[in-house]
Amino acid sequence: MSAGLTIGLRRACDRAAGRWFPRLQEFCAVRSVAGDAEGMARAVSTVQAWLTEAGARVVLLPSVRAPAVYGELGEGPVTVLFYNHYDVVDEGPGWTLPAFAPRVRGKALYARGAADNKGNLAARLAALEAMRDAGLTLPARLKFLVEGEEEVGSPGLAGLVARHGRLLAADCCVWEGGYRDARGRPTIRLGMKGLLRVELRCRCLGADAHSKMAAVKKSAAWRLVWALAGLKGRDERVSVPGFYDAVTVPTADDLECLAGVEDEGAGVPPAELLPGIGPREVTRRLLFSPTLNVSALRAGAGGGTVMPAEASATLDIRLVPDQDPAEVERLLRGHLAADGFGDVEVALQAAARPCRTPPRSPVARAAREAAREVYGVEPAVYPLSPGSGPLHVVCGDRGLPAVAFGVGHDGSSTHGPDENIRLEDFRQGVAMVVCTLLKLASWGR
Amino acid sequence: MSAGLTIGLRRACDRAAGRWFPRLQEFCAVRSVAGDAEGMARAVSTVQAWLTEAGARVVLLPSVRAPAVYGELGEGPVTVLFYNHYDVVDEGPGWTLPAFAPRVRGKALYARGAADNKGNLAARLAALEAMRDAGLTLPARLKFLVEGEEEVGSPGLAGLVARHGRLLAADCCVWEGGYRDARGRPTIRLGMKGLLRVELRCRCLGADAHSKMAAVKKSAAWRLVWALAGLKGRDERVSVPGFYDAVTVPTADDLECLAGVEDEGAGVPPAELLPGIGPREVTRRLLFSPTLNVSALRAGAGGGTVMPAEASATLDIRLVPDQDPAEVERLLRGHLAADGFGDVEVALQAAARPCRTPPRSPVARAAREAAREVYGVEPAVYPLSPGSGPLHVVCGDRGLPAVAFGVGHDGSSTHGPDENIRLEDFRQGVAMVVCTLLKLASWGR
Repeated sequence: MSAGLTIGLRRACDRAAGRWFPRLQEFCAVRSVAGDAEGMARAVSTVQAWLTEAGARVVLLPSVRAPAVYGELGEGPVTVLFYNHYDVVDEGPGWTLPAFAPRVRGKALYARGAADNKGNLAARLAALEAMRDAGLTLPARLKFLVEGEEEVGSPGLAGLVARHGRLLAADCCVWEGGYRDARGRPTIRLGMKGLLRVELRCRCLGADAHSKMAAVKKSAAWRLVWALAGLKGRDERVSVPGFYDAVTVPTADDLECLAGVEDEGAGVPPAELLPGIGPREVTRRLLFSPTLNVSALRAGAGGGTVMPAEASATLDIRLVPDQDPAEVERLLRGHLAADGFGDVEVALQAAARPCRTPPRSPVARAAREAAREVYGVEPAVYPLSPGSGPLHVVCGDRGLPAVAFGVGHDGSSTHGPDENIRLEDFRQGVAMVVCTLLKLASWGR
Repeated sequence: MSAGLTIGLRRACDRAAGRWFPRLQEFCAVRSVAGDAEGMARAVSTVQAWLTEAGARVVLLPSVRAPAVYGELGEGPVTVLFYNHYDVVDEGPGWTLPAFAPRVRGKALYARGAADNKGNLAARLAALEAMRDAGLTLPARLKFLVEGEEEVGSPGLAGLVARHGRLLAADCCVWEGGYRDARGRPTIRLGMKGLLRVELRCRCLGADAHSKMAAVKKSAAWRLVWALAGLKGRDERVSVPGFYDAVTVPTADDLECLAGVEDEGAGVPPAELLPGIGPREVTRRLLFSPTLNVSALRAGAGGGTVMPAEASATLDIRLVPDQDPAEVERLLRGHLAADGFGDVEVALQAAARPCRTPPRSPVARAAREAAREVYGVEPAVYPLSPGSGPLHVVCGDRGLPAVAFGVGHDGSSTHGPDENIRLEDFRQGVAMVVCTLLKLASWGR
């Protein structure tokens, strides 16, 4: 069996893409937004039907708000897990076309969910059909996990993964999606930053006091300000001892990938950049620098003559490999106590370990080589993604190498108005799935 | 003419108090709350009628929201200005009796405005009636300024004082009111702290950014935190150079007064006190220490994954003699700029100079001696009041010595539920006005 795409197989991919584009269009008419019970139920039925039709054994996995659909099919030396989700964000403002009455304009499909994430699921199922159509048996064991809670923070995913660890066992994972960058290159993402979100709360008084009492009473607002100022200096360096100790990026492989990556900071107005960061350094920092961001400050109701009894701040800390959110939380608490702010409460809101896939792992190499073959250009390989997501729950925490690629483009407007994908990207996306699977299977595990 | 109270005059005061208590009760039924046009108009009519009946020439002085009532009567070597206000704060929560259907229970009158400030105006007019009743002609030229905007920050008062400077010329002022402290001693206040309120605003981004951008973008929240931390250290000392330069209190006279003052911090839970402040030092700091309070902090809408484009803080700075709010504002701006935060905008919200009356000035001495005579105890004389108010507009900025005393008590619940005054305090309050006037007039100017 060849690991590359024959002309016949490529044509089968194009035909499958042509058949699946209208099916995707229909699927995008389903308003599977959290809280829309009918839309969510219809989306579940569609995913079940598609997977069943593909020949999979299908199981519904209950979760906290909406069930995940699991499907399994094929045999082979490698087991590949596909992660997708059927829920979408709501319409939001600014659309020039209807969000849930999908239209094709200029060879692009405009609809909420076209890119995030229904188009990717459709492309993956089209890939299975293309292989059958070309007379191939599936070369690997394939598992599909299609959840319905991604857009609301995947509240049930960790529990689901814990309960169904054996079902979800795999050699590697193909994550929800990806896009072609502004230069038309396909992107492949090999990991994500982690996250620690905490709320710091300081309470000094039983109730708000008249501000004349500031002469004698402790101020929650000032204590919060001083505690925060002790966490990060004006030089942007985090002052918590040990914060940077576990940082292992960028490696030589990372830097090699970085050289081929589109400049993520291209759109940042220079006046908004931190001092000393040239435009060339933006991508490097976005991918490899941990952050300590204050996403909210709260004290007082706005009246002028009050001492607020309480003040709070939300800290959102992005972590890079191998910073561990639990360890960073411990360091943070320890530093606050040592710095004289043991009274400042630290409430955990969210934690996600950073996760990454070695650029030389089989799935990363397979995707990279497939991209070269399908698109005819060198892909942009991101060793990390600057955002966060549930990747760590399914892959990182279980040591599962994962790659993310898909059918979007840099103008897909994910979560924005007029979300769209192009038919051409969809066709190539189908071939990309086939080619990656063939390469992985040909190498064995 | 005797400067003391004869038994006959004292009886005349009691009779006048007895007649005026029901009139006050009726006045308190008028809901003269800002925005209640009918209540405000009725209160203006009552004040006009009362002053006219007392024999005053009465003039309405237009202001920005509600007119002030001015009345003038009597002749003598001294001109005394009485400042009062006819507006009240609204009901607020927690009342066990109706706020605007005044009731007398256990020799106390319960009604919104009984203490703040209608009871004091009534006692002052009752004092004039008592003198007439006792066959005395008024020993001084008396001017009454009764405004209707005090509870909304006296927005028109400065303009009104500027327009009617000659009309309001006087040798001294008796300010709106006062109270008997927890030990039953009458209090006399000789000044007030000043105030500077500014909003600090820092804007770094055109719009809120995804928090992943914290790796490369300027953070308004962090810049605000660092700017604030540069204004006051953990030792509670204001770091703005020159901030303390103009501080002239406490003087030897101030300290002598302080020794006789009820402990204002008696009710402060020790756990809420700043470290190193013993209960004995609370009053001294409340009266004589300037403050730099953060009354509000604002950044972000509470979502966790955002870099807020803007962050702001409200600073409320209480000033002591002779700190000047304009000079302190200048120092603050200069310090921020020198400290690297020239981009932090400083928006002035309110400014009031601290003002004080020398404890040895005639009006202060007259009030102190009158209090001894009327109440039979040494009064508690506060060289400054830890709060702020429009005293500086009428008196401080014009060099007019002023005293504040009145008919409330420490349980009067000003601005709170079940506001009340006691008939006994009202009777003594009437005599206090008479006695103070007689002493001032006997000394001449």
